[in-house]
Amino acid sequence: MSDYKLAVLAGDGIGPEVMVEAKKVLAAVSNKFDLKFELNEYDVGGIAIDNHGQALPPATLKGCEDADAILFGSIGGPKWDNLPLEQRPERAALLALRGHFDLFSNLRPAKIYKGLENFSPLRADIAAKGFDVLVVRELTSGIYFGQPKGLEGEGEEEFAFDTMRYTRAEIRRIAISAFEAAQKRNKKVTSVDKANVLVCSRLWREVTEEVAQDYPEVELEHIYIDNAAMQLIRDPSQYDVMLCSNLFGDIISDECAMITGSMGLLPSASINSDGYGMYEPAGGSAPDIAGKGIANPIAQILSLSMLLRFSLNEVAAADAIDTAVTKTLSDGILTGELLTPENRDQAKSTSQVGDYVASLI
Amino acid sequence: MSDYKLAVLAGDGIGPEVMVEAKKVLAAVSNKFDLKFELNEYDVGGIAIDNHGQALPPATLKGCEDADAILFGSIGGPKWDNLPLEQRPERAALLALRGHFDLFSNLRPAKIYKGLENFSPLRADIAAKGFDVLVVRELTSGIYFGQPKGLEGEGEEEFAFDTMRYTRAEIRRIAISAFEAAQKRNKKVTSVDKANVLVCSRLWREVTEEVAQDYPEVELEHIYIDNAAMQLIRDPSQYDVMLCSNLFGDIISDECAMITGSMGLLPSASINSDGYGMYEPAGGSAPDIAGKGIANPIAQILSLSMLLRFSLNEVAAADAIDTAVTKTLSDGILTGELLTPENRDQAKSTSQVGDYVASLI
Ligand SMILES: CC(C)[C@H](C(=O)O)[C@@H](O)C(=O)O
Ligand SMILES: CC(C)[C@H](C(=O)O)[C@@H](O)C(=O)O
Repeated sequence: MSDYKLAVLAGDGIGPEVMVEAKKVLAAVSNKFDLKFELNEYDVGGIAIDNHGQALPPATLKGCEDADAILFGSIGGPKWDNLPLEQRPERAALLALRGHFDLFSNLRPAKIYKGLENFSPLRADIAAKGFDVLVVRELTSGIYFGQPKGLEGEGEEEFAFDTMRYTRAEIRRIAISAFEAAQKRNKKVTSVDKANVLVCSRLWREVTEEVAQDYPEVELEHIYIDNAAMQLIRDPSQYDVMLCSNLFGDIISDECAMITGSMGLLPSASINSDGYGMYEPAGGSAPDIAGKGIANPIAQILSLSMLLRFSLNEVAAADAIDTAVTKTLSDGILTGELLTPENRDQAKSTSQVGDYVASLI
Repeated sequence: MSDYKLAVLAGDGIGPEVMVEAKKVLAAVSNKFDLKFELNEYDVGGIAIDNHGQALPPATLKGCEDADAILFGSIGGPKWDNLPLEQRPERAALLALRGHFDLFSNLRPAKIYKGLENFSPLRADIAAKGFDVLVVRELTSGIYFGQPKGLEGEGEEEFAFDTMRYTRAEIRRIAISAFEAAQKRNKKVTSVDKANVLVCSRLWREVTEEVAQDYPEVELEHIYIDNAAMQLIRDPSQYDVMLCSNLFGDIISDECAMITGSMGLLPSASINSDGYGMYEPAGGSAPDIAGKGIANPIAQILSLSMLLRFSLNEVAAADAIDTAVTKTLSDGILTGELLTPENRDQAKSTSQVGDYVASLI
């Protein structure tokens, strides 16, 4: 019988209410698979600023260090938007955690679930073809963290600068993540770059080609970021794994998420080379609907499933959650945003959806 | 009676055949508005590599310098894709021309024409709301041209780097382009950045806010690039002018073009502070359909209209072309890609469409 320690960081907005549902599901798998979890809750983001004066208090960071993985909710909201940038939840907590734990491998699956095609903003015939992409985004380097970065000069000639920077080693490890994932999926990696302009992208292409040698069954193709942003709208079904640098992955993963039309269903994982990771819904804190009991808890529940799969290697438990979620959706146990206006009176609450998933396990 | 000199650079792929149609239309407006044009044709891109060993031969550059504006077709194709990057048509000609003439203001209009909503890859109800955006992209600075750029180090620690760089003056002049354009349109500027991560974006926001002071009737909003890539798919009708840095504008303008579903209709302008400019279709050289007489000449014809409007200030002539194009489309004089498969036998050829537009002037 295993004994796992999880740091639970619910955060702001809808974070706390969807986290309640993920914990219900965790209790169910813990029961069923005879797993023992110690859950420790810590403040993060806006609530941590309010309670402790900073978005990532030392106790929270310490708690994460002591844990086997982090289950993260969502952070930020209008209340903290006017703080200096460095203190804001997104930077002071999210980017700080990514950097601190070297969570370089960001996995963002996006798919259209059967029966929910109508919610895709794409034309019916395109959405009907389906869509199941895994964006593998480099998360701890590139122009987000590259040095130097700053302001120099005076008057109208004052200039700002940021540095995009990638080592071969950094490219190699994220490319390996992508090929490993593709190996277990549809065996295709589409690497997104701007090699006609960026030196970083040329090295990216070169190293990606090298890594591809070790995965002869996986097909590798390269696409420019501008073309990728287009092709995703025209025919997203052509992609399997999309391998992206930090900035391009930010853009492409959000585009993929929107194309599904059901952001409330999408989890994400940010993992380091020891398998330690942080797991969180792809959508934001949605302050406008927070506290109303209408937020979709599925993304948080699927984030838990990714945690079990990738950080704890509890594959059976993760599979059980995924199966329960698929059945919940096909049984029509849906929050309001996944129902057409005519059917919205059949909407289930956040906790009804969580209960249903848990009951199926 | 005016006397204008145009450098005509048809280039590769479908470039030459759509250029023929633009010249027909130019002859028609020249007649009707009593304007005199001297047209000088020069090789550029792949054809220039084949004929003169370089994508932008000195004679071509000299011809452009002597002209009042450049009417550009399209360049590149598989034949030249294996050349070293620096010699390839896109870089050696396109980026070189942009840099040489300081064509910092890139205007990329994208709209859904009435009756062509079905070709948009967006869901019918979203496309039905219509969509008319002008992307104003900074074209001669940012990470495309920023120094330093290169490779350093050894082995796995070898790293590539690119510099994103913007001065206040560079941001100010492109922001002014955007506000000037918005003033004549729907009075809204959406500035796209990543100010939560990039110092360049923070300066971008600051200068844009300053410029906004001079345009009290124009509304300014800021959006992160990742969110913009999403919102464009969910509801593109909310945007009027989108102001973007070089890299972000590359991505956003292509996304906008794809959303219209009719890339063959979209022109673009790249202008410097003297009003000198280069005008070209937004789509590429489409080598797969080149020489078949089926390419849509409208984007090239509308590029001519932008040239007349922005570089020559011949507004009446430009208006006449725009009106003729709109009528051509609503009269159903369409190339095949704008017809449903059932109606494709009614497709008009490249030259039939050009003749029709010219006949309406
Ligand atoms: C909040 C922001 C810094 C962050 C990013 O750009 O990485 C977010 O957009 C994301 O994708 O997780
Ligand atoms: C060919 C390439 C360098 C170019 C760019 O990125 O600017 C093209 O994509 C464009 O948008 O005109």
